[in-house]
Amino acid sequence: MKNTIRIIGLDPGLRRLGWGVIDVDGARLSWVGHGVITPDEKQALSDRLLDLFEGLTQVLETYHPDEAAIEETFVNMNPASTLKLGHARAAAMLAPAKLGLSVAEYAALDVKKSVVGAGRADKDQVLFMVRRLLPRAGAEASLTADMADALAVAITHAHKRKMAILRSSSAAVAQLKTKRSVA
Amino acid sequence: MKNTIRIIGLDPGLRRLGWGVIDVDGARLSWVGHGVITPDEKQALSDRLLDLFEGLTQVLETYHPDEAAIEETFVNMNPASTLKLGHARAAAMLAPAKLGLSVAEYAALDVKKSVVGAGRADKDQVLFMVRRLLPRAGAEASLTADMADALAVAITHAHKRKMAILRSSSAAVAQLKTKRSVA
Repeated sequence: MKNTIRIIGLDPGLRRLGWGVIDVDGARLSWVGHGVITPDEKQALSDRLLDLFEGLTQVLETYHPDEAAIEETFVNMNPASTLKLGHARAAAMLAPAKLGLSVAEYAALDVKKSVVGAGRADKDQVLFMVRRLLPRAGAEASLTADMADALAVAITHAHKRKMAILRSSSAAVAQLKTKRSVA
Repeated sequence: MKNTIRIIGLDPGLRRLGWGVIDVDGARLSWVGHGVITPDEKQALSDRLLDLFEGLTQVLETYHPDEAAIEETFVNMNPASTLKLGHARAAAMLAPAKLGLSVAEYAALDVKKSVVGAGRADKDQVLFMVRRLLPRAGAEASLTADMADALAVAITHAHKRKMAILRSSSAAVAQLKTKRSVA
């Protein structure tokens, strides 16, 4: 059984799609890579979406993550921006889905709570904590807020999936105990 | 040179993605096919988007249209619905873009004006006019409002592209005349 799980986190936008890849081995997180995909804005919408989709597919084929995670979108804003973000987000979800990966969704509040410890943290606090949690990412001058957000989503997924595994294994132990007490 | 152009029109939604294919030869429109793609709603969002994308890719590989057209989204509504529609719309644009097709966008107002002659037409009027303009589609019991909307977008694209060609050829004639008068 492979112990290390590779996770890609995504911070989608029509102008910039941030991505960040980490490896998770038990409680140990390690940075693998991060970057941003920036489609040519002069193109038709369908071609900008295709740039996002194909750019991300290339990243996935380079890093071979096992699972993907993305932020849930905060909809309480300008409807035109919401629509644009919906387009970008779908392109970002389709690329991993097409390669057979599951795509977990997390509320922005949960991502901030998971990484900073407070749901009302700002972008700078997220960037600061991502640099601390992943020192090798922090050493990279290229790390910007959207890539840090993508890494934060990947870290959140690492925490949540570990908790889910702990819950299911403690449930299995409880079940085992029940069975024994019955027997 | 091929005189017949095949157009696919798309009416995207996360629950139902309507599509309609027509052939255009000069002013003559003829119905080729229509249908709807309905992803399993119990799946994760990424897999529902993948169902739309792959279902539409299959339709495109069956009918081989030359061009695609889609309605612009009316954003003045519930932000959560706008976001969902943005997701579905991106999946619907990505499938033809991935196969190298251009995807034209038309405002709902222009589609209604083009097909019914009035921008404030309702769904029943669009359905009625699509049945008249494409009698073979009208004869099909399977034609529902979303498929008729998809065919209406394809008809709109047929009209608009014809006008664009007429404009460019009259511009070419005007240019030729100018050149002659100069010479």
